[in-house]
Amino acid sequence: METIDTLINARWVIPVEPDCEAKDHHSIAIKGGRVIGLFPTSEAKQRYEAEEVIDRPRHAVMPGLVNAHTHAAMSLLRGLADDLPLMNWLKGHIWPAESRWVSAEFVADGTELAIAEMLRGGTTCFSDMYFFPDVVARTASRLGIRVCAGLIVLDFPSAWADSPDEYLSKGLELHDEYKAHPLVTTAFAPHAPYTVGDQPLERLRKLSDELDAPVHVHLHETAEEIRQSQERYGERPIERFHRLGLISPLLAAVHMTQLEEADLASIVEARSNVVHCPESNLKLASGLCPVARLLKAGINVALGTDGAASNNDLDMIGEMRTAALIGKLAADSAEALSARDVLRMATLNGARTLGLGEETGSLVPGKWADAICIDLARLNTEPVYDPVSQIVYAASRDQVVDVWVGGHRLLADGVLERLDEGAVLERTRSWQRLISESPER
Amino acid sequence: METIDTLINARWVIPVEPDCEAKDHHSIAIKGGRVIGLFPTSEAKQRYEAEEVIDRPRHAVMPGLVNAHTHAAMSLLRGLADDLPLMNWLKGHIWPAESRWVSAEFVADGTELAIAEMLRGGTTCFSDMYFFPDVVARTASRLGIRVCAGLIVLDFPSAWADSPDEYLSKGLELHDEYKAHPLVTTAFAPHAPYTVGDQPLERLRKLSDELDAPVHVHLHETAEEIRQSQERYGERPIERFHRLGLISPLLAAVHMTQLEEADLASIVEARSNVVHCPESNLKLASGLCPVARLLKAGINVALGTDGAASNNDLDMIGEMRTAALIGKLAADSAEALSARDVLRMATLNGARTLGLGEETGSLVPGKWADAICIDLARLNTEPVYDPVSQIVYAASRDQVVDVWVGGHRLLADGVLERLDEGAVLERTRSWQRLISESPER
Repeated sequence: METIDTLINARWVIPVEPDCEAKDHHSIAIKGGRVIGLFPTSEAKQRYEAEEVIDRPRHAVMPGLVNAHTHAAMSLLRGLADDLPLMNWLKGHIWPAESRWVSAEFVADGTELAIAEMLRGGTTCFSDMYFFPDVVARTASRLGIRVCAGLIVLDFPSAWADSPDEYLSKGLELHDEYKAHPLVTTAFAPHAPYTVGDQPLERLRKLSDELDAPVHVHLHETAEEIRQSQERYGERPIERFHRLGLISPLLAAVHMTQLEEADLASIVEARSNVVHCPESNLKLASGLCPVARLLKAGINVALGTDGAASNNDLDMIGEMRTAALIGKLAADSAEALSARDVLRMATLNGARTLGLGEETGSLVPGKWADAICIDLARLNTEPVYDPVSQIVYAASRDQVVDVWVGGHRLLADGVLERLDEGAVLERTRSWQRLISESPER
Repeated sequence: METIDTLINARWVIPVEPDCEAKDHHSIAIKGGRVIGLFPTSEAKQRYEAEEVIDRPRHAVMPGLVNAHTHAAMSLLRGLADDLPLMNWLKGHIWPAESRWVSAEFVADGTELAIAEMLRGGTTCFSDMYFFPDVVARTASRLGIRVCAGLIVLDFPSAWADSPDEYLSKGLELHDEYKAHPLVTTAFAPHAPYTVGDQPLERLRKLSDELDAPVHVHLHETAEEIRQSQERYGERPIERFHRLGLISPLLAAVHMTQLEEADLASIVEARSNVVHCPESNLKLASGLCPVARLLKAGINVALGTDGAASNNDLDMIGEMRTAALIGKLAADSAEALSARDVLRMATLNGARTLGLGEETGSLVPGKWADAICIDLARLNTEPVYDPVSQIVYAASRDQVVDVWVGGHRLLADGVLERLDEGAVLERTRSWQRLISESPER
């Protein structure tokens, strides 16, 4: 018998690779932080002698969820301004609050709140875009969650950097610092076509090519963005990014509503990645991303919550549900975007978007043991004719009872192991008092 | 000081009437099952001597949620067949399963499962449409939840009745039995334009007028329904119902997608009620109900989950979120269908649709004490700049910690008082085994 660290015996295992079908009475074997085997439980018990055995007799085990687009620290601004369109929301509320409050401390506390919420709801990896990515990387690494820290670039100054050059040089420094880190990777993160000019984008593109680093950007979020780009550059944002060499397999294009045939063709030809943020797109009335069509064209489409200020939570289970529901609307077909499609988007496709497709996103031997366990024995998820369908269409995030990242158990029976929930909430309330009382509000 | 039964001291009270603004540090006084006062906590403590005092220092208290359209017993078929359009789903899966399995026992067990899920998630009143409404009424009454039992009518026979006349006569019997019941009311419930002919609809309309009873019907659910009606009757379903005298203030028209100007005008003129079921409409790709437009025209629009087989849960908090999000999409405006709009739809508008507008749906003196308490001190709902926004856009149903119906506490600190959750799940699994193994599946 082989000695291993952990054996999880589950009622169902949904490996995502090779497919999203639930395997009855299967077990996951973990050693050295990685999945080393997936077998029927009866067989696994004969093969392995585990230091820790975890029995989950009415639960589904699946890969951890990958939140492919968020602004973690913005959780401190959750609910500050709702029911407003993107530009009013940004210019009238979010940007003023950010320019008043964003600091290393704000980002540390906001990111910790976000990570606590994400781990509690089964997210094991997130792609972030925010100021002070050094703080984001440090916080994630300390708390044990996997992160792709976005090296943000903007034309205008912030508390983090004064110029596009400084954003980029600070970003490069961070990239170097985390080159070999087991949990932290980085991506270039130009904010959006309307906030970054051609020159920094060109420089960033060269760096991204040299370092083989993903480029994470808001793209085609609203009709207004496209109108502005046509006015200023005579090009749609995708055309402009194509001219700048940015439409490539390294691109993670976030939002992607308002797509014309030429936009689609450009993305398909380059094999770029798309990150769908359905709840944010709906809440800001930005538009619909044609997800079923993109998937059919072979595009890798991932799923993200966006920041909590425009969602207003970081709940990837809820986001899968919304994606499946509005995917059917966008395609005008109840068969479009099935439960299995969105489960893959929320796991493997997310990992691939971040360049981590060989490391996480599915439960296959050799990958990191980034896994979650969902209790389906609840009033809202019984009977269980199909566990995948129950997870996507009926489960709530509070049914996530265990979370492992790289084999480390970060949520155990519903309790966060490395976080003091009470302390996180206390710090959150301190920020709320400050921000609520400020005249900018 | 006045002696009362219960005093709930909350961080916020959201009364819904006169408005949906949260009142800081307010208390609800309950006596004889009814709300008798709503005051600032400091004042309430001086006015009342309560047998039971409940302090909820980081919680919002609001009216119980009213699920204005469901088929409770269908919870036993939750997840049986997903990602299919309405007619395939009905004819290929749901109707065959129902004709094989529906019985008084099926309805008793399925309704109990549904009520357990609904109470757990803050629903205090539901409008049902299913076979064996006598069993639905009895189960709801035993478990203490408020129900409007739909007296179903169909052209085709079922385990409950053989002919439209039998459906109606059994329905009338039930109506009489519950005439003065504190928890149970009834409504006529012709299934849909495509399943009930003119003759039974005419008889039903006369009875509804005589008894002043609501008429609860699926109407304009899909484009196909409209096409069929035009083919068979030469009229759109709303035109046909208008000809039959059914477009009236007693009408609760469920779904209402595919509305043309004349349809809208007819509904507005008659002051009929509309029940919006966004998740079911999305899941079956039925279409979008123009909710913001209906509200603007003065229509009373309520909210329902539909049955768990097409949703797949009975979560009214999630349904509010989906309604707000797709309401913005349908209206192409982020300002359309605010958090406050959907909160009112999910409470007061629901009560009005069932003819219970003077009895429940808001926390005003004289109404039944149908109230719920939501814990907002969670990782996903802090900070709290605006409690209404947090409830609609960020809270989960598991944050509902207390539920009262008519002053009786049915959920206390997250525990169902009159239900054995384990026994409910055991019976659910027995049905699952039977249904899974049947050749019809």
